Amino acid sequence: MRVVISLGGSVAFAEVDPSVIEAHATAIGRLVDDGHEVAVVVGGGPIAREYIAAGRALGADEVRLDEVGIAVTRLNARLLIEGIGNIAHPWPATTYAEAGQALRQGDVPVLGGVAPAQTTDAVSAATAEYVGADLLVYATSIDGVYSGDPASDPTAERFDQIDVSRLLEVIADIEMSAGSQSPVDLLAAKIIQRAGLRTIVLDGSDPSAIETAVRTGSHDGTDVVVDGMQEPAEW
Amino acid sequence: MRVVISLGGSVAFAEVDPSVIEAHATAIGRLVDDGHEVAVVVGGGPIAREYIAAGRALGADEVRLDEVGIAVTRLNARLLIEGIGNIAHPWPATTYAEAGQALRQGDVPVLGGVAPAQTTDAVSAATAEYVGADLLVYATSIDGVYSGDPASDPTAERFDQIDVSRLLEVIADIEMSAGSQSPVDLLAAKIIQRAGLRTIVLDGSDPSAIETAVRTGSHDGTDVVVDGMQEPAEW
Amino acid sequence: MRVVISLGGSVAFAEVDPSVIEAHATAIGRLVDDGHEVAVVVGGGPIAREYIAAGRALGADEVRLDEVGIAVTRLNARLLIEGIGNIAHPWPATTYAEAGQALRQGDVPVLGGVAPAQTTDAVSAATAEYVGADLLVYATSIDGVYSGDPASDPTAERFDQIDVSRLLEVIADIEMSAGSQSPVDLLAAKIIQRAGLRTIVLDGSDPSAIETAVRTGSHDGTDVVVDGMQEPAEW
Amino acid sequence: MRVVISLGGSVAFAEVDPSVIEAHATAIGRLVDDGHEVAVVVGGGPIAREYIAAGRALGADEVRLDEVGIAVTRLNARLLIEGIGNIAHPWPATTYAEAGQALRQGDVPVLGGVAPAQTTDAVSAATAEYVGADLLVYATSIDGVYSGDPASDPTAERFDQIDVSRLLEVIADIEMSAGSQSPVDLLAAKIIQRAGLRTIVLDGSDPSAIETAVRTGSHDGTDVVVDGMQEPAEW
Amino acid sequence: MRVVISLGGSVAFAEVDPSVIEAHATAIGRLVDDGHEVAVVVGGGPIAREYIAAGRALGADEVRLDEVGIAVTRLNARLLIEGIGNIAHPWPATTYAEAGQALRQGDVPVLGGVAPAQTTDAVSAATAEYVGADLLVYATSIDGVYSGDPASDPTAERFDQIDVSRLLEVIADIEMSAGSQSPVDLLAAKIIQRAGLRTIVLDGSDPSAIETAVRTGSHDGTDVVVDGMQEPAEW
Amino acid sequence: MRVVISLGGSVAFAEVDPSVIEAHATAIGRLVDDGHEVAVVVGGGPIAREYIAAGRALGADEVRLDEVGIAVTRLNARLLIEGIGNIAHPWPATTYAEAGQALRQGDVPVLGGVAPAQTTDAVSAATAEYVGADLLVYATSIDGVYSGDPASDPTAERFDQIDVSRLLEVIADIEMSAGSQSPVDLLAAKIIQRAGLRTIVLDGSDPSAIETAVRTGSHDGTDVVVDGMQEPAEW
Repeated sequence: MRVVISLGGSVAFAEVDPSVIEAHATAIGRLVDDGHEVAVVVGGGPIAREYIAAGRALGADEVRLDEVGIAVTRLNARLLIEGIGNIAHPWPATTYAEAGQALRQGDVPVLGGVAPAQTTDAVSAATAEYVGADLLVYATSIDGVYSGDPASDPTAERFDQIDVSRLLEVIADIEMSAGSQSPVDLLAAKIIQRAGLRTIVLDGSDPSAIETAVRTGSHDGTDVVVDGMQEPAEW
Repeated sequence: MRVVISLGGSVAFAEVDPSVIEAHATAIGRLVDDGHEVAVVVGGGPIAREYIAAGRALGADEVRLDEVGIAVTRLNARLLIEGIGNIAHPWPATTYAEAGQALRQGDVPVLGGVAPAQTTDAVSAATAEYVGADLLVYATSIDGVYSGDPASDPTAERFDQIDVSRLLEVIADIEMSAGSQSPVDLLAAKIIQRAGLRTIVLDGSDPSAIETAVRTGSHDGTDVVVDGMQEPAEW
Repeated sequence: MRVVISLGGSVAFAEVDPSVIEAHATAIGRLVDDGHEVAVVVGGGPIAREYIAAGRALGADEVRLDEVGIAVTRLNARLLIEGIGNIAHPWPATTYAEAGQALRQGDVPVLGGVAPAQTTDAVSAATAEYVGADLLVYATSIDGVYSGDPASDPTAERFDQIDVSRLLEVIADIEMSAGSQSPVDLLAAKIIQRAGLRTIVLDGSDPSAIETAVRTGSHDGTDVVVDGMQEPAEW
Repeated sequence: MRVVISLGGSVAFAEVDPSVIEAHATAIGRLVDDGHEVAVVVGGGPIAREYIAAGRALGADEVRLDEVGIAVTRLNARLLIEGIGNIAHPWPATTYAEAGQALRQGDVPVLGGVAPAQTTDAVSAATAEYVGADLLVYATSIDGVYSGDPASDPTAERFDQIDVSRLLEVIADIEMSAGSQSPVDLLAAKIIQRAGLRTIVLDGSDPSAIETAVRTGSHDGTDVVVDGMQEPAEW
Repeated sequence: MRVVISLGGSVAFAEVDPSVIEAHATAIGRLVDDGHEVAVVVGGGPIAREYIAAGRALGADEVRLDEVGIAVTRLNARLLIEGIGNIAHPWPATTYAEAGQALRQGDVPVLGGVAPAQTTDAVSAATAEYVGADLLVYATSIDGVYSGDPASDPTAERFDQIDVSRLLEVIADIEMSAGSQSPVDLLAAKIIQRAGLRTIVLDGSDPSAIETAVRTGSHDGTDVVVDGMQEPAEW
Repeated sequence: MRVVISLGGSVAFAEVDPSVIEAHATAIGRLVDDGHEVAVVVGGGPIAREYIAAGRALGADEVRLDEVGIAVTRLNARLLIEGIGNIAHPWPATTYAEAGQALRQGDVPVLGGVAPAQTTDAVSAATAEYVGADLLVYATSIDGVYSGDPASDPTAERFDQIDVSRLLEVIADIEMSAGSQSPVDLLAAKIIQRAGLRTIVLDGSDPSAIETAVRTGSHDGTDVVVDGMQEPAEW
């Protein structure tokens, strides 16, 4: 199976802790050993937020801050590449084309951000579309898609399964509330919809949960359902 | 005044007609002669649609088709650069940073698309934010922002003025209707909102109308209003 | 056999018609399936002429117009790459070195133009020399090499076979007549001569004719003969 | 005066604190306002050490860790650029040539690391040589050059002035002791010597002290003396 | 006046002699001091021939040898840049666009070769066309254009003046004779013709002769005459 | 075995003699045929010295001269690549990352210099560290490490074996004497020490001696001994 894993910055780089990165890298390595083709997109996490806050205080506009954030995601990508070792494409891929080429050549590409005004959520979905992925996994700090923002709305309920058109509505609602955050952003959801990408949103803090989701499709998060989607032959 | 002009592909490159491109280039040149700092973002137009349709028929995914579309916008940018002549940055700028640097050095940068999954609408807004523009002008094939898609909804009315938060709602509604198109896309509108960009949406078929809008703020399109925005000193 | 196919813009991109591109891509794919190593150089065709004419009307000099033309050939290359699919080097190669490296790695490189003041005819010959091709095929809109320009000279006769030194004379004569066009330009012919390249010039409108020429050496066009050349072992 | 300021990571980026960065940026801006030409080289500091430690734990060799460190210095450079604002070259310079060109064009270039196996100390000296600087200032976390490592050797005394050949000996001695660190490394000192660079090593925690040293030559650190060096005309 | 000087490798780099290079650089500097805009294209000379001969003996094809030759011309360009000093674009320009941009910004660009299968003769003419030069000077090891190759044909006579169409015939004849060499190659002459470039071919061994030709149009070589060409206002 | 060969410019490029280069290339080819993974770093030799001397006479500083020297090493690298043929990475690698990637893909990368202020000695050691080499061979014009500079000190004795910490002392002593030269420079020795690289310094004039050293560990030069180093399994 060809899979893109979106590894949230708060999940894998909350502490710049090598043992956490190692655990994720090992899970990825096992998937590759078993014949899966894997591309990874990593987020920025607390270090990105720290640099972006400093840049904002220094007067930078948001596009320049995106450039700062992209630089941090690529720094994080370097660490994950070291953890994955020789099967990884040896430096952070900076375009979809470079990631696709690395995957064609049998390597695991690791991307951070690609361009300003585009989150790593959207980069993950676009990478999945570009490489024709069978599965896109968002390994986030939230354990799935909720009917609202669970941080601010106690009545928000988690979906086991959600249709992508409903997902778009939920995200649009959450994004309208200032300060709320959805586990996947609107642009990402639109790409998922147009590309018909089988997508799982789950709590990424346990690498083996990601691994199990890829191997069996079984997980405790949310399945995003796209019309006419078939079960993968490998499950 | 520092201004970013978003020159729609259907406006300036509908026919690859040098007299149309010349007219736009001349208007830009006059603005620069009078002391304005101008950056331009051009769209793809019919040639882009033709190549994208062919690519889709050949099985390319949307991200790759975006790469095709970006290549056409940069081709269009070359023609506009030839029209503008020696005051233009001599090749299409491919990043916000390159465009900003050209503007710093006194040149007119011309951009096409920047990255997949990002329209030239959004590139225009991001460029305006990046260079700290006083004004962003969308010169489109529609003559302003309507309450719906005028092509399909005969009751749609044009706004003379619209608050950016209302703009976001209108765009969200239009984008939900399959086949409809708003004059400015959602990501662009979000950047306009966050950056507090004074924005005008107008019919771009007459270059002198664009020129007048930049010189005086007077036009027949729609003003997008952002909270707390002041009139420019130059008007 | 290692072969370079020069696919004229007027042959494969006269209409930006995906079925034409698909047919050429399929023929190329079959050659690769049967063990041939193939590199392709594509021309600009009508779209290139349209953009170049516009650029000229806008006052661009010929070197800048060459840059415009190169951009169109690379756009065309993108479409052919989509048609060829996963066995193609995934983006247009922009240097001989990149094309050579792609071929070494088992991919089909597709090039457009390389530098100003150099036609895709010459790029094709130089690529063939660079990769040590066994055969160079010019798939053009003319069905071979004539003793004059068949468009203007009714007595011009097609050669079934022509020695490369005679080819040089014929081309020099044609190029002296304003408005006439030879199927292969002078620089290309000189490279063919110095590199001793087995070359076929044929009508490229039927992809299967190109395919047959590569497989068997049989065709209805013109064989360019270079001293001491042997039949390929594979024929 | 043309000056290169080496801004230690522990000095300006110990906390990713915008007020500290702002203070350094403001001092640089005042020097430029008064006619000085300034280039800056920034170090990595604690964030670099954190990422490098993680990379080492993940098994990366030192050359790859240098790449990680360089990425952090360039991230730091972005923040300083935001602080300096419009007079800064708008992105981190990555080669000596790019830095020199920015300075020629009247901008303040900011560099981080340039290549593996080369500290930002050495980059600073090489930049100073490349741009023909009148003065090189090391703004470090130590307040000058000591006869030993003050952290481990209580008898170490600070030099008010030191000849560059003596500096080389002192550094060689310190570098022989495991765990000790000199304020300027051996390669940097050799470049200072060969280029005859007027050099000051001072405590960089107070930006105004750096500014005063550049304006007047007066400071509380160590002057590195090179044979035959004259006082700058401006002092 | 805007002028492109083509500095033959055998003229300026016959011995890698700094005093020769210095003399050429000084003449160029004086022209710039007097208000001329100058771009320079340098050839490879004996070092290029030595490396190319070695590469050929090692089995490299001509396209790869061109890459070797281009590398040598850029090495030569570096030396000339050092001689010219601060008014030179600080590294060898590698494209026409880069050279044009450097000239727009008031610098003296120095180019070597640009692409395989294109001599520095042709690069010189294409640069002149690209930057809209008023004058193109070929400073060669031959003192003008002859009716044949003076090295092999004792009856060859030098032209004081030659029409560009006659030049094309002369070059075509010379190039047909194996081992003969014309002072300007065929592609260069064609560009001169299409661009209507005022061109002088002269013995470049005396830098002051080049300088005088640019200042006054007076020289001992050959004027290439293009239809309808006017005398420059500055002469 | 994975091996990095540092091929001194005075050894392989003393005369730009294709037969010498061919002999080195052939030895490398045989090592690869027998299963060794080989990366090569080439020096500049007499041509580099000639260009650097000219640049210095023209007033270039040492950093710019390093750029000149790097250009010559990459020119030399091109020739060696032609000699090695199809198993070589087809152009000079310019970063450690590019060299490492080429080796991962089964090619022989050839590097020259990487950055100013870094000799090809140091590049060789850093490459060896980067690719995790089992062996680093310095093929120099001196036949091993001596207790002093054999050119100036007749009592200097060659070591058959030397501990790396002793090597550092010897080099430091030699470098203190003006005009003396050690076979390996200080930065290189420090990288050898920190990376624990098994290293051989030998007379490189006979390619078969290099080949034998790689195959068997037997040679007439100096073994640099690093603590805890084991014999390679292959010897």
